[in-house]
Amino acid sequence: MHSSTSDFRPVASTALPENDGENPYAGLCLHTVTTRPWAIETAIEKYAAAGLGGITIWRDAVEDRDPQQIGRRVREAGLKIVSLCRGGFFAAVDAGEREASIDDNRHAIDLASDLGAPLVVLVCGADPRQSLDDSRGQIEEALGRLAPYAAERGVRLGIEPLHPMYADTRSAINTLHDARVIAERVGDANVGVVLDVYHVWWDSRLEEELSLLGRARLFGYHICDWRVPTEHMLTDRGIMGEGCIPLETISGWVRATGFEGFDEVEIFSTRLWSQDQDTVLKRIKEAWHG
Amino acid sequence: MHSSTSDFRPVASTALPENDGENPYAGLCLHTVTTRPWAIETAIEKYAAAGLGGITIWRDAVEDRDPQQIGRRVREAGLKIVSLCRGGFFAAVDAGEREASIDDNRHAIDLASDLGAPLVVLVCGADPRQSLDDSRGQIEEALGRLAPYAAERGVRLGIEPLHPMYADTRSAINTLHDARVIAERVGDANVGVVLDVYHVWWDSRLEEELSLLGRARLFGYHICDWRVPTEHMLTDRGIMGEGCIPLETISGWVRATGFEGFDEVEIFSTRLWSQDQDTVLKRIKEAWHG
Repeated sequence: MHSSTSDFRPVASTALPENDGENPYAGLCLHTVTTRPWAIETAIEKYAAAGLGGITIWRDAVEDRDPQQIGRRVREAGLKIVSLCRGGFFAAVDAGEREASIDDNRHAIDLASDLGAPLVVLVCGADPRQSLDDSRGQIEEALGRLAPYAAERGVRLGIEPLHPMYADTRSAINTLHDARVIAERVGDANVGVVLDVYHVWWDSRLEEELSLLGRARLFGYHICDWRVPTEHMLTDRGIMGEGCIPLETISGWVRATGFEGFDEVEIFSTRLWSQDQDTVLKRIKEAWHG
Repeated sequence: MHSSTSDFRPVASTALPENDGENPYAGLCLHTVTTRPWAIETAIEKYAAAGLGGITIWRDAVEDRDPQQIGRRVREAGLKIVSLCRGGFFAAVDAGEREASIDDNRHAIDLASDLGAPLVVLVCGADPRQSLDDSRGQIEEALGRLAPYAAERGVRLGIEPLHPMYADTRSAINTLHDARVIAERVGDANVGVVLDVYHVWWDSRLEEELSLLGRARLFGYHICDWRVPTEHMLTDRGIMGEGCIPLETISGWVRATGFEGFDEVEIFSTRLWSQDQDTVLKRIKEAWHG
């Protein structure tokens, strides 16, 4: 059967490992930023000991490490690397800045390849000195240039739509609709979307857009919660169940696309970072209904 | 010619007064909350002296005043009352709370009628203990009940879509699309939409949705700016030109619908409230390109 991704072979699959019925947390992945106080080596050890199936590595966690060595260490611990966070920030008024961003993203793709990460998550950027349409056009152009480079290295590129409260500087891609349209326009089989419930839970068109996106273009799924009230625009995310995001409903729509990847827990929280990280990890496991 | 609003006669028109060519600020309206340190009497006097054409009155500004007397005072000063802010908060898990909200909104409609305000602006509410779809259904039901009550009093009801960062408790209506759909479903000629650039500037579908909405359902237009960075989710709005909202572009789309109402400046800012309000008013006038 012809598949739209048949011409693309990632270095590793993002599909879940076969569940042998003995590890209930095999479908759960943590982002290293969630337990930011832990060094990467500690995170690998702790996640594996907790029975998690996957780890998503943030660049800052490995910036002074040998990525191939870290990749081996992850695999030896029995974890899958789900993705590398993050690339992007393609939009800029200045052409020199845009070229520097292309270079930086090639480095991110190289890093993913060295780690054995099959996916780079993209926060696409916005420049408040120009229109969002201009930023969107620059994002599309950059993706078109980077997609073949990533494909040669077996790496996929995942556009993450960001909450509209980040439209000024972080991303001009603010809905799943925007992300889907740009992924389809770029067209390469290794360009798709990463969905984070924090950014899109409010969108009345989310279910419809997920069904239009489909399995072939949905590369990742991030979970957390929206706290009521939210005290800080960046670093007050909650553990699942601490807020108002209808996670079960959204997860149902995600699974209805045929998506078979991990539930990735990505939480930025000064509150949680200040606490005992073993307890935080325990609470996340308890809160997860995989 | 038949008009979809022909069966509805507001107590006062929101259309601009005839510009005699001598008052360049006749199309400009301020919300009393923008100059919050001023009592309503001071605001009326200062806005009129500055040559503004309109005033939108917040309920807190008149809660211990005689509304008919305030209405007369506004008109004697040569100002138009553009709208009353605000009603809404229709969504609640508890049925008793929903009934209390209906009562509160009837009071707001009565207050608008007493003031001579042709429009009540609605922040429709959300209850984080239920789904956004449930909240949206309750909003639609409440509007269906209130529309005839408002029409009898010559008052229009304007649904204001709120930024998605307020979807937890303030409004389940987070895009112009959501607001248009609910206004059309309610159907009454006196139920429409109030657009505030702060809430919708990021939306890639804004131009298309404005053209679908059209003049008959666009009841008001609020302007300000999105500061970069934004330090507070509620009270860090900027004066036009202080941020990244493409105001000229959006105003062009608004005028293309045939909208003939005021540009209403609505700014919540602890920074500006702490400054000399005469200077703030002067800066707003200078920043406005009516």
